[in-house]
Amino acid sequence: MKAYKIQGGFGLEHLTIVESPIPVPGPGEVVIKVRAVSLNSRDLGVIDGFYNPDLSEPLIPVSDGVGEIIALGERTSRFKLGDRVSGIFTQSWLSGEPTQANWSSTLGSPLDGFLTEYAVLSEEGLVHVPAYLTDEEAASLPCAAVTAWQAIVEEGKVKAGDTVVVQGTGGVSLFALQFAKLQGANVIVTSSSDKKLEQAKLLGADHLINYKLTPDWDQAVLEHTQGRGADHIVDLGGAATLNRSISALRVGGQISMVGILSGAQVEAFHIVPAILRKARLQAINVGSREMFESMNRALESSKLRPVIDRVFPFGEAVDALRYLAKGEHFGKICITM
Amino acid sequence: MKAYKIQGGFGLEHLTIVESPIPVPGPGEVVIKVRAVSLNSRDLGVIDGFYNPDLSEPLIPVSDGVGEIIALGERTSRFKLGDRVSGIFTQSWLSGEPTQANWSSTLGSPLDGFLTEYAVLSEEGLVHVPAYLTDEEAASLPCAAVTAWQAIVEEGKVKAGDTVVVQGTGGVSLFALQFAKLQGANVIVTSSSDKKLEQAKLLGADHLINYKLTPDWDQAVLEHTQGRGADHIVDLGGAATLNRSISALRVGGQISMVGILSGAQVEAFHIVPAILRKARLQAINVGSREMFESMNRALESSKLRPVIDRVFPFGEAVDALRYLAKGEHFGKICITM
Amino acid sequence: MKAYKIQGGFGLEHLTIVESPIPVPGPGEVVIKVRAVSLNSRDLGVIDGFYNPDLSEPLIPVSDGVGEIIALGERTSRFKLGDRVSGIFTQSWLSGEPTQANWSSTLGSPLDGFLTEYAVLSEEGLVHVPAYLTDEEAASLPCAAVTAWQAIVEEGKVKAGDTVVVQGTGGVSLFALQFAKLQGANVIVTSSSDKKLEQAKLLGADHLINYKLTPDWDQAVLEHTQGRGADHIVDLGGAATLNRSISALRVGGQISMVGILSGAQVEAFHIVPAILRKARLQAINVGSREMFESMNRALESSKLRPVIDRVFPFGEAVDALRYLAKGEHFGKICITM
Amino acid sequence: MKAYKIQGGFGLEHLTIVESPIPVPGPGEVVIKVRAVSLNSRDLGVIDGFYNPDLSEPLIPVSDGVGEIIALGERTSRFKLGDRVSGIFTQSWLSGEPTQANWSSTLGSPLDGFLTEYAVLSEEGLVHVPAYLTDEEAASLPCAAVTAWQAIVEEGKVKAGDTVVVQGTGGVSLFALQFAKLQGANVIVTSSSDKKLEQAKLLGADHLINYKLTPDWDQAVLEHTQGRGADHIVDLGGAATLNRSISALRVGGQISMVGILSGAQVEAFHIVPAILRKARLQAINVGSREMFESMNRALESSKLRPVIDRVFPFGEAVDALRYLAKGEHFGKICITM
Repeated sequence: MKAYKIQGGFGLEHLTIVESPIPVPGPGEVVIKVRAVSLNSRDLGVIDGFYNPDLSEPLIPVSDGVGEIIALGERTSRFKLGDRVSGIFTQSWLSGEPTQANWSSTLGSPLDGFLTEYAVLSEEGLVHVPAYLTDEEAASLPCAAVTAWQAIVEEGKVKAGDTVVVQGTGGVSLFALQFAKLQGANVIVTSSSDKKLEQAKLLGADHLINYKLTPDWDQAVLEHTQGRGADHIVDLGGAATLNRSISALRVGGQISMVGILSGAQVEAFHIVPAILRKARLQAINVGSREMFESMNRALESSKLRPVIDRVFPFGEAVDALRYLAKGEHFGKICITM
Repeated sequence: MKAYKIQGGFGLEHLTIVESPIPVPGPGEVVIKVRAVSLNSRDLGVIDGFYNPDLSEPLIPVSDGVGEIIALGERTSRFKLGDRVSGIFTQSWLSGEPTQANWSSTLGSPLDGFLTEYAVLSEEGLVHVPAYLTDEEAASLPCAAVTAWQAIVEEGKVKAGDTVVVQGTGGVSLFALQFAKLQGANVIVTSSSDKKLEQAKLLGADHLINYKLTPDWDQAVLEHTQGRGADHIVDLGGAATLNRSISALRVGGQISMVGILSGAQVEAFHIVPAILRKARLQAINVGSREMFESMNRALESSKLRPVIDRVFPFGEAVDALRYLAKGEHFGKICITM
Repeated sequence: MKAYKIQGGFGLEHLTIVESPIPVPGPGEVVIKVRAVSLNSRDLGVIDGFYNPDLSEPLIPVSDGVGEIIALGERTSRFKLGDRVSGIFTQSWLSGEPTQANWSSTLGSPLDGFLTEYAVLSEEGLVHVPAYLTDEEAASLPCAAVTAWQAIVEEGKVKAGDTVVVQGTGGVSLFALQFAKLQGANVIVTSSSDKKLEQAKLLGADHLINYKLTPDWDQAVLEHTQGRGADHIVDLGGAATLNRSISALRVGGQISMVGILSGAQVEAFHIVPAILRKARLQAINVGSREMFESMNRALESSKLRPVIDRVFPFGEAVDALRYLAKGEHFGKICITM
Repeated sequence: MKAYKIQGGFGLEHLTIVESPIPVPGPGEVVIKVRAVSLNSRDLGVIDGFYNPDLSEPLIPVSDGVGEIIALGERTSRFKLGDRVSGIFTQSWLSGEPTQANWSSTLGSPLDGFLTEYAVLSEEGLVHVPAYLTDEEAASLPCAAVTAWQAIVEEGKVKAGDTVVVQGTGGVSLFALQFAKLQGANVIVTSSSDKKLEQAKLLGADHLINYKLTPDWDQAVLEHTQGRGADHIVDLGGAATLNRSISALRVGGQISMVGILSGAQVEAFHIVPAILRKARLQAINVGSREMFESMNRALESSKLRPVIDRVFPFGEAVDALRYLAKGEHFGKICITM
C-alpha cells in the first residue's frame, strides 16, 4: 500500500509516499481502507515539526479520515466488514472527562494518521459515520466538528435565543456557526473578508462584523445585543482576541478558547473585566467518542451539510497542504482516494 | 371596573362579574389595563375549589394575562406607561431555585388573577412581552410556555439530535414540542386523536403515536429509537403514564414530571426499571422570571407562534371555561377584552 | 483452585465448591488471587434466582472482591504483578454516563464473580486499592461504597451545611452517612433499631430517628430543619418510603433512589407533592471506574474506615450468606481466604 | 450619628467623621445600628479613588458590616427589631446568575457602606447572622467569605479527596482554605512567609509551599500530586500567577480567578497550556444572597471560626486602614463600635 510519511526530517519537503504491506489487525483492531481525509492547520504544524518537538519520525500525518472496514482482528465486536467509519481524534478518550494519558493517543501525532491507503486502529477508536454524508463530508468531522460540538453544545450548553459570537470562518468556526443555529441561537460571525461573511450568511449567520472595517467589534456586539453582551463566544484568535471577547461578553457568559495554533500567548490579558463579567473561560480540546456519537445523532436528524472548499486527489496531498497554508479557503480541504 | 370573582362558594356557578373601582398602585406597584387572558386547567381546579382547599374567596381567578401599564407607583423603575407586560405565574420567584415561600405568591390563587379589566401588581412580578406576538398569543405564555421552557431547556438541557417524547397536545405539550424543535431535537408526540396528531405534525412533530391504537407506546418509542430509548420525556399523564415513560427512556435519560392536575398518584410506581435506566425524574412547577425572560429571547429570535384554539369575549368567560373543561381544544383558549 | 458455583438450579442449596484449574489470562486480562470478598443483598437475589430470571448457571456469585495480581496477559499496562486491586461492579462502565450495554458486564451476574480463589478479568475492569485499608475493608467498596459515592457526591453534589437523610444502616447507608460527613453535611439517620442508631451516631450521625417509634419521620425531619426540609435524601426503602421522602424534602431538593431490592413498587406514588417541591428523583445504579477512583482519593485523604460487621472463612460462605439474609448486621459481611 | 465620609477629594486624608441625623427607613427599608465592620483591600481602592473613577463623593466607605435592626419601614417582613444582620455586598443580587444591573448596587461604592454608626438598607439586602459568631467574626463574612464560598463550593463544586491550591493568606484565601477543608479536600497553601504558612497549617492546610523559596511552585504541586495536578486552584495573584496556576492544574481542572485588585493584567497569558489541560477559568465576583445564606448554614453546622487579625475602635478607623495597607496581617482587620 501507499502512505505519506514524514521522514528524514520535518517540513513539507520531507513528506513522501512510501510503499509498505497492508497492515494485519491485532486483537481488538480493525483495518480500514481509507476513502477520504480532511486537513486541519494542526496537520501543518505537525509536518513542520513545531507542533510536537519530541515527535519521532517516520510518521504518517493527518488526523482526520474516513474509510471502510476490510479486516477484523480477534475479540472485535463493534463493527462488521464494510462498515464506514471515522477515527476519533483522541483515540483513548471515550467518554467523561479526559486524562493526561489520553493526549498521547491522538492521531496524526504521535500516532500514525490517515494520509495512507490503509490504516489499522483499535475498534474502540472508531465511530459509525452518518449515511447521508459523502466521504469528504464525513472526513471533515473528527477534529473541527467535534471541537465545535464540545464548545457549543457539551460545554457551552447554548440554548435557543442565546447570542453566540463565532470568530472567523475556518473549519471549527463554520461548524460552530452551524451547531449554534441547530440549537436555536442567534449567531454573529466576525471575519476580515466581506466575501467570507456573505458565505457565512448563507449558512445561517444572523449578523456579520468585518473586524478589519470595525476593529472594535466588541462594541458592535454590545450594540447589537442592546448592551447586554453575547451569551457565548467561540474564541479562535487567542492572543489577538481574548480581551475583546471578554469585553463583548454578557455578565455570566462563557468563552470557548479553541485555536490551539492561534498564537502563543495573550499580550496582557486583563483580569478585572473578566471578573466584572463573572466570565467563564473554557478551554476546548476536540472531544470524546461519546461527544462524536452524540454529534452524529444531531447530524443524522438535521442532515446538516459540512462545508467543503476543495477536494484534491491522493497524489496531490502536498499541493492540498500548501493550499491550506495559504489560508484562502472557506470550509474544509479534503483529499480523496 | 369589571372583574370576575369567585364568591359565595366554589364552582362555575359562583363566578360572577363584580364592579369595583380601578386600583391605585402602592410603592413598587403598577396598574395594568388587561388586554387578553389565557386559560389553564389549573384555573378550573381553582374555581371548582379542589385545587387549594384553604383558598378564601372572593378571588379573581385565572393566572395568565397580558396588558398595558397605565399607572406607575412610587419607587418603580422597570417599566414606563404604555409598556405591554405579562404577569409571572409565581410572582416572587425571580431567579435561581424556588423556595417554599414563593408558592404563596402564585396568581389566580391565592393572589388575585387576570380575569379583570384592571390588575395591580408589583413591578417585579412582570416581564416585557415580545413585540411580534398578538395579545392572545402573549397571554398564553406565563403558565404553559414557561413550564415547557423549564422542562425542555432549563432542566432538560435538550440538545440537537436528542429524541424527546411529548405526551398529549395540551398547552404545555405544544410548547414543549415547539421548544424541543427550536433546540434541534427529534420529537415524538403521543395522543389518542389522529386529528390532533396531524395538527402536531404541522408544528414539527417528527413521529406520531396514537396511544389508543398503540397502548404499549413505550415499545413504539424503543423501536423508533432502535432500542436506545428517548433522551427526554415530558410526562403529563402522571398516574397513567409514569411507568411507561420510564420503560421508553434511554439509560441516563430524564423525565419531566408536569401535569399537576394529571391525577393524584401513580398506581404501583416501579422502582427497579427506573434504577436500571439510571433515570432522572424532575418535577417541574412553571418557572422563574429569569426563565420567562430567557424564553422570550428565544421567541423573539425564532418568531415562534403559540397555538391559539379559540378566543372568547370577556363577557363569555364562563363559556370559555366550560369549553376548556370539554378538553376538545388544540392549543390555548383565550379571552379578549 | 476452589470456587463456589451455582449449578443444578438456584437457591443456597445449589451453591457448592467446585475444583477447576487456575485461569490463564488472555490479551488485556490479568489473573487475581482473591484475598477477601464482601456480600451484598444483591448476591442473595442472584443465588436465589429471582434477581436475573434469564441467568444461566453454572455461575460464580458475589460481585465484590479484592486480591493480588499474579499473572499479566499480553497488551496489559495498567498494573504490575503484586498490585492489590478491586474489581469494578460494572466492568465496562469506565466514565461518563452508562449505556444499556454496560449492564451486561456486571460481576457476580451475568459475569462470574469473586467467590473463588482465583479470578480472571480485563485490566480495564480493576482499580488500585487504598493502601491503608485491610483486605476486608477494601472488599467492601465496589458495590455499596461506589453506590453511596455516586448518590452523595457525583449526582447529589452534597455540600457543607446541607441536611442529608440516610435511610437505614445497611452497607450503602453507612457509606452514604460517612461520605455526607466528609462533605460537611448534617446527617439524619433513620432506623427501626435504637441500638443501630447509637452505632450510627458513633460514625458521625447528627440526628437520629427511630421510624418505628416515629412512623411519620418526615414530620420529624421537617421539625429538625425548622420546616425547610432536607436537601438530599438517600431512599433505600422504595415502596415503603418514597412518598414520605418527598414530604421530608425541601423545595428544590433531591432524592437518590437506591435499594434495587427494596421492593418491586411504590403503592400509589403521589405526584402533586413532588411537583410542589420541584423534587428531583435520581435513580442510582452503583457507578463508573472514574467514580470508584475519585472515591478512593477521598478515602486515601480521609483515612475513612468502612464498617465491617463480621468476617467468615472461605469454607463458611454459605453461613455468611445466611447471616446476611437474617439482616441483623451493622456494616459489611466479609469472607476471607 | 457619626459616620466616616470621603469628601472633598479622594485618599485617606479626605476620610473624616461627619455628624448627621439617624436615618429614617422608607418602605421596604430597615435601619441598622452598626456593631462591627471588617476591611477589605477593595475599601482602600475605593478611598484612594482608583477603584471606581466615576465615583461621586461624599460617600460612606467599607462594604462589610454587621449590626442590629432598630427600625422597620412599611411593607417589611423579613426581620424583626433586634435581629442581628449583615449586609449583602451586592445588594440586588439575590439568587441565580448576576446581571450588569446588580453591579451598581454594591455597598461601600457606589452605595454608602458600613463605616457609620447607623445604616439604612432595603430588607432584601440583608441576611441573618449565625448566632455563634462574635460581631467581628460576623462582620468579616460579606465580601471575603462569600467570595471564597462561591469559588470553592458554588462554582468550584470541590469534593472530598480533591486537591485544592489556595494562593496566599489574605481574607479570601483563609476562608477558601477553611471551606475546602469543610468539603473534605486536601489543601495546599502558598505564601512568601513561613510564619503565615505555619498559621495556615493550624487552620488545616495539608501542604505548604513558600513560593519565595520555591518560585516554581507549580512543579511542587505536580510532584505533591504524583504528576496529576490540582483539581482546583484559587488564583488571587492574577498577573503574576495565572500561567503557573494553569501549569499546576490537572486535565479538566478549574481555576477560580479572584483578586480583583491583584494587578491589572497577565503579561503574556499562555493559551496552549490551558487547552492541553482543558482548563476552566471561572472569574468570581463575591456572590448572591442565596450563596450567603447557604454559606451561613455551613458555618452554623461546622461552627467554623473566621480568623480575626486585629480589632480597632471606631475612632481609629484610619489607623485600621493604614494597617491593612501594610499587608502584614493574617486574617481580617475589624473595627468595632
